[in-house]
Amino acid sequence: MTQIKVGDYLFKRLHELGIRAVFGVPGDYELALLDLITDNDLEWKGNPNELVAAYAADGYARVKGAAACVTTFGPGETSAYCGMAGHFCEFVPVVHIVGYPTIQAIRKKAIMHHSLGNGKFDMYVEMVKQIMADTTVIDYPPLAASEIDRVLNTMMYEQRPVYIGLSIDIALEMISDAPLGCPISRTLPPNDPEVEKSVVSKIRNGLERADNPIIVIDGGAARHDVLSEAHEFVKLTRIPFFTTPMGKGSVNEDLPQYGGVHFGAGTHPGVKNAMESSDFVLIIGNFPSDFNTGEFTCVFNKNIIEFVDFQRFSVSIGEIKYPVSMKFVLQGLNKDLQRSKLMKAAQKVTWNPYPTLEFSPSEHLKQDFLWPTLGSFFRPGDYIIGETGTSAFGLCDSRLPAGAVMHNQTIFGSIGYATGAIVGVAQAVKESGGKWKRPILVTGEGSMHLTIQVLQDLLRFDLKPIIFVLNNGGYTVERLIHGKEALYNDVAVIDYGLLGSTFGPGVPSKYYGPIRTNGQLEELLKDKDFGNAGCSELVELILKPLDAPKALVRVGVAVDKFNKGNVTGAA
Amino acid sequence: MTQIKVGDYLFKRLHELGIRAVFGVPGDYELALLDLITDNDLEWKGNPNELVAAYAADGYARVKGAAACVTTFGPGETSAYCGMAGHFCEFVPVVHIVGYPTIQAIRKKAIMHHSLGNGKFDMYVEMVKQIMADTTVIDYPPLAASEIDRVLNTMMYEQRPVYIGLSIDIALEMISDAPLGCPISRTLPPNDPEVEKSVVSKIRNGLERADNPIIVIDGGAARHDVLSEAHEFVKLTRIPFFTTPMGKGSVNEDLPQYGGVHFGAGTHPGVKNAMESSDFVLIIGNFPSDFNTGEFTCVFNKNIIEFVDFQRFSVSIGEIKYPVSMKFVLQGLNKDLQRSKLMKAAQKVTWNPYPTLEFSPSEHLKQDFLWPTLGSFFRPGDYIIGETGTSAFGLCDSRLPAGAVMHNQTIFGSIGYATGAIVGVAQAVKESGGKWKRPILVTGEGSMHLTIQVLQDLLRFDLKPIIFVLNNGGYTVERLIHGKEALYNDVAVIDYGLLGSTFGPGVPSKYYGPIRTNGQLEELLKDKDFGNAGCSELVELILKPLDAPKALVRVGVAVDKFNKGNVTGAA
Repeated sequence: MTQIKVGDYLFKRLHELGIRAVFGVPGDYELALLDLITDNDLEWKGNPNELVAAYAADGYARVKGAAACVTTFGPGETSAYCGMAGHFCEFVPVVHIVGYPTIQAIRKKAIMHHSLGNGKFDMYVEMVKQIMADTTVIDYPPLAASEIDRVLNTMMYEQRPVYIGLSIDIALEMISDAPLGCPISRTLPPNDPEVEKSVVSKIRNGLERADNPIIVIDGGAARHDVLSEAHEFVKLTRIPFFTTPMGKGSVNEDLPQYGGVHFGAGTHPGVKNAMESSDFVLIIGNFPSDFNTGEFTCVFNKNIIEFVDFQRFSVSIGEIKYPVSMKFVLQGLNKDLQRSKLMKAAQKVTWNPYPTLEFSPSEHLKQDFLWPTLGSFFRPGDYIIGETGTSAFGLCDSRLPAGAVMHNQTIFGSIGYATGAIVGVAQAVKESGGKWKRPILVTGEGSMHLTIQVLQDLLRFDLKPIIFVLNNGGYTVERLIHGKEALYNDVAVIDYGLLGSTFGPGVPSKYYGPIRTNGQLEELLKDKDFGNAGCSELVELILKPLDAPKALVRVGVAVDKFNKGNVTGAA
Repeated sequence: MTQIKVGDYLFKRLHELGIRAVFGVPGDYELALLDLITDNDLEWKGNPNELVAAYAADGYARVKGAAACVTTFGPGETSAYCGMAGHFCEFVPVVHIVGYPTIQAIRKKAIMHHSLGNGKFDMYVEMVKQIMADTTVIDYPPLAASEIDRVLNTMMYEQRPVYIGLSIDIALEMISDAPLGCPISRTLPPNDPEVEKSVVSKIRNGLERADNPIIVIDGGAARHDVLSEAHEFVKLTRIPFFTTPMGKGSVNEDLPQYGGVHFGAGTHPGVKNAMESSDFVLIIGNFPSDFNTGEFTCVFNKNIIEFVDFQRFSVSIGEIKYPVSMKFVLQGLNKDLQRSKLMKAAQKVTWNPYPTLEFSPSEHLKQDFLWPTLGSFFRPGDYIIGETGTSAFGLCDSRLPAGAVMHNQTIFGSIGYATGAIVGVAQAVKESGGKWKRPILVTGEGSMHLTIQVLQDLLRFDLKPIIFVLNNGGYTVERLIHGKEALYNDVAVIDYGLLGSTFGPGVPSKYYGPIRTNGQLEELLKDKDFGNAGCSELVELILKPLDAPKALVRVGVAVDKFNKGNVTGAA
């Protein structure tokens, strides 16, 4: 048992969780705390602003399983709330460490900078309670270790963000390191064996009765760490499986049972018919949000035997919800299937999960050409972030090789997210040491503008991303919904070719573009040097303002219908 | 009486308050609402991100008296919370209009994008209640007008931000325009005449008894619209007056009674002695925060007769707080002084309110040369924004001519604010049509990076700012407090000379720099073309990382002391 500083205790816990880089923006309330980061074998990866820091932490946590972000009380943390709400919504475990004024300033109700000038200090933690799995503002050193451990345990248990307020006077107090002997739990407690057994048996029976059962691996599968169980399940059952916009990039599309991406009205007809005619549907990590279901237009077979909804803490069969974790239920199902195969032969995937490619090299670059073509560029080891809107929907049309991973923010849908998150993804990729791994950002120009200062970090931290920017003169996804020609859907014209030299003078970077025709894109993607330049590479793709993937156009119509009163979705 | 849309009603109210430009970022929940902006003689000034939009609204409101900002539910609004908290803290009336999902999506608890994915829709308004004077989420058209009027009346009454949640289905409903006949109140109700009379008489008596009374015009004077009363009071009493970092730029420094900027330990010795020896202190719009008082180091004469604290809703004489608005008390005092002058002759200002200038042209540019010299560049009609940190403190050493106005964010202290706020200031200046008026931004490079995409707006909206960027290799103000050489106080190196062509290709803009010596700065400021180029002008000033205005160094020591336990300040 040794005495260590509260700050050291915290950072040792982060190290234990696999965290090696800490994101954030310094402020005078936490400067001395930042000194302890390097003392504990962590790297400080400061960012140009706090929203970027929160997004970077998001990307890092998606790859590494957890992340940390340090900001200052008040302006710092409130600037990051959008990022934090995204962590909460999309199940991304990030700990937000916020530098607080000293305990005595708080006790004396002093009018400190970064407060609201009224002697109050609890308003920010009250705000974040709405978007955090747990919070603590540590004001008593003897409780520091148990408070830190409580919120970090909650973070891992719920896979959601937590908040630790820490003033520098507390951070430097000495406490016992004894609790470090008991690690933060990273696994869920086991299910009740009887309930689990019953659920497994019911699902197995359903699979035996069904004529054309299907599996959907939705976004929750990746977020709740059941991808290996889900894939094993697919392989053992040999039945067709699908994914969703949120799940795209988390499944192995090379498996012969891969059936495509389903999102209601947006789905390619072959895929849609195949999935919606199933008589037994198992959705793993189901997240039936508007954008993940083509605005609530998933229409399942009416004579369905059962609908099985796999969640982190429950599995529902039809209308009955069982209090079991899907992870262990899937493990139980897999064991059962290993013991005895399904009696019925599985349906074969006879439809094409990808859209057909329309191509004329001299024609202006079109989205219906772009996305399938981009698929040919991706390779195992790619970590792709697709921005909300055209990019994430468009990437649903790209075939991803096994071993390529894609992330997006389907539910929270904050534009600017992807450009920030690539910093964390790229940092995590860099830490893994795999030189063949590539961080790839695909975003629209309107979205990129929100967090464009990210280029600083990508360049100075030598993160070597490959960036595709869709420059189509504004917010295309919004034009499809409302205001096709409206001024408010325009964004500024900027020079993408200058971004590298502006934000990283002296740092090598490459610009390719503007790419205006299908042929130019094809040529670039065939160029062996492109995507392997060993530095940041940015491609500017010029698209027409109203061009969009066919799927997105179909969803746009559904959104319009929904807004006019045709609601079917419910939580 | 006519039927109009709820959205039209709202925008007509904004127009009535003098608002002509609306800032924000579009989102699909409010696109159709944005169509109504131009219908009501308002201009949409969309911004690259929501934090910038909130800062722009702040700058606009400081010049025009009110501002409006439109963002989307969830990601949009949460990205702007830092800006909103700043409005609340610093008394800036801005209405935040947030585009909500449709009422029926909310009623059905649908999992909509931008929510947290759990069927809840009230979490964001619960968050902003901590940083808003009033909020409403309109869900019933017949109440829309009264809800809108209530929050806008609160905004003007409290001079603080308010929040209106509005879904597009409600925004397009028809309501009566009859309530528009009764305008939003922009004045405070009168004081109780007896109490006011008694307060006026007590202050008058104190002034007569005192040997060297002084007046401090603090930041609250500008924020609560009593600058003309305060100046009249100064002229009628003829006694010396001072200001503070928060008040700097709101007072007429050309008056012979001007005594300088006071902030405790940071104050120039002559000014400090003059103010702290007073035996009767009147502080108008007092805001005794840490940074506004040199970390609570204002030491007043112990034998003081009385300390009069003028606030928006109260005036305190010694320990007694009277429920009267300072505005009418000041008007009463002025009337009284017009009837009969003070008996005693007023003290003359014999000290120099400005620091002495140390100058060697060939020497590396120093802060102690920079700030006094910059003063010579300012002229009437300048609207200057000084960033929190070195810039706002440094500008305290610049002599401002009467008719030049300066704003900063002394209490909330969010870096990046100034770069965003200049958009709103410049837009307001442009609307006023005075070609001789110049929007001027003075900021550090670390701060500028937080909101650097603002350059898009400055260029495409043709706002013609003059920008001084202090490039000193990181967060200097933080180095002075802790971590002089620490990595976390470094910021990225970027190319300021390329900013214009990157963010506004084809738009004229000028870059001057890098300015490395005192002589180079002097030469630039003497150049008649500089500051009159009719386009955006950016000056890059290269300063040494640890060079700071003397005042700031002194405050840094006080902050260190405070953090070690020497607290005297209290709300």
